[in-house]
Amino acid sequence: MAKNFRLYSSEELTEQKEVLLSEEQTHYLKNVVRYEVGDTLNCFDNKNGEFICQITEINKKITHLKVLNKIKPFKICPDIWVLFAPLKKDKTDFVIEKATELGARKIIPTITQFTNTSNIKTERYIAQSIEAAEQCRRTDLPEVTPPQNLTAVLSQWDNDRILFFMDETLESKSFYEQLEENKTKKAAILVGPEGGFSEDELKHLRKCKFTKGATLGPRILRAETAVAAALSCWQMIAGDWSK
Amino acid sequence: MAKNFRLYSSEELTEQKEVLLSEEQTHYLKNVVRYEVGDTLNCFDNKNGEFICQITEINKKITHLKVLNKIKPFKICPDIWVLFAPLKKDKTDFVIEKATELGARKIIPTITQFTNTSNIKTERYIAQSIEAAEQCRRTDLPEVTPPQNLTAVLSQWDNDRILFFMDETLESKSFYEQLEENKTKKAAILVGPEGGFSEDELKHLRKCKFTKGATLGPRILRAETAVAAALSCWQMIAGDWSK
Repeated sequence: MAKNFRLYSSEELTEQKEVLLSEEQTHYLKNVVRYEVGDTLNCFDNKNGEFICQITEINKKITHLKVLNKIKPFKICPDIWVLFAPLKKDKTDFVIEKATELGARKIIPTITQFTNTSNIKTERYIAQSIEAAEQCRRTDLPEVTPPQNLTAVLSQWDNDRILFFMDETLESKSFYEQLEENKTKKAAILVGPEGGFSEDELKHLRKCKFTKGATLGPRILRAETAVAAALSCWQMIAGDWSK
Repeated sequence: MAKNFRLYSSEELTEQKEVLLSEEQTHYLKNVVRYEVGDTLNCFDNKNGEFICQITEINKKITHLKVLNKIKPFKICPDIWVLFAPLKKDKTDFVIEKATELGARKIIPTITQFTNTSNIKTERYIAQSIEAAEQCRRTDLPEVTPPQNLTAVLSQWDNDRILFFMDETLESKSFYEQLEENKTKKAAILVGPEGGFSEDELKHLRKCKFTKGATLGPRILRAETAVAAALSCWQMIAGDWSK
């Protein structure tokens, strides 16, 4: 069996403990990857780290695991949040997946004036983020919050956290300059919807004390590309990509 | 009509010239966006820049355009190449689209030992890159080459061009360090397939004079994510994202 197969366990893990996997995970183990009693896989619990676990029983709806050795300590991703305006289904899936892979600690679906709010599904976003975390070998999960309105987000913001908003108007400094000037602070990245921010939103964003407008070069990036690009740049300069 | 609609013209454009669009473009204009005689759109030719063009005739298979004003000079993207190992169809589409949006000058599908070569379609890659260039407002097109074997690529390499290869083994320096030390040089980014590079390939890559191994942090990035992330980082430090 693929020795690197990983699953998230919603139960806390400690060595020698017995834990159960969900019906959905059981279906996957039995019918997709065809695991059997005696096979081992890796599980992480978003709390204690990653463990080798052995299947002791697998029924139609439940898998019983015995937790064996701990192989990786729990490590939380750098303190960077991603605020994005929900897009079409595929593109939102993409944003959640990439934000998780690229090490966002928190993901906030953010409703702006030009955001299409017809298809926002927090449960789905959470499932996507878990799958991506399993794949990319994080031992933590990003926190995916229910959707929030941009105005509400801004009014409750912690002044100590820099909010970099991606500014397509090119009136802002480059993201590189902003990062160099603000790399020691906890931060968040905000990317607007396909139609950009409204004039009112831009005015408001530029007025806040904790915001820094930033541009990502002369080409027009799709919203989902901008999320991946901005997060990569942040990780490189201020996160855990520079040793 | 959407005033920002853009198409690539394979014919060279100059003011007052009459040019023809292809059957496929004609189909799109007529049946998808429903353009008519008299409507205008923007065209760029990967040579002279971007022009407003007016439809003077639109038949079943051909559109006649009159080139009006030039609105943007031709500008070539920074001198960065992307070498990637072809992936499954959707993921390769993604790589081409993102590499184009993120300003790659040249895209080289690169066959490594663990690359699945069953579905490599250069024509399709070129079409994807044109569509992405139309969307992201480049006035140039990336050059998309036919697939090449990694060993052949390395044996013909120009020693003046740095080749950053993304090294999942974490034995290399961080990409940030490598970029800071090599930011003034023309460059290329190489990302291996899902299975990574083979031992032999890694040995070979580490031995070349023009290569620099680089890591993109502690999480495992999917190949297509690594392309977008590495290119974003390069553009920020060495490309046209820093003013």
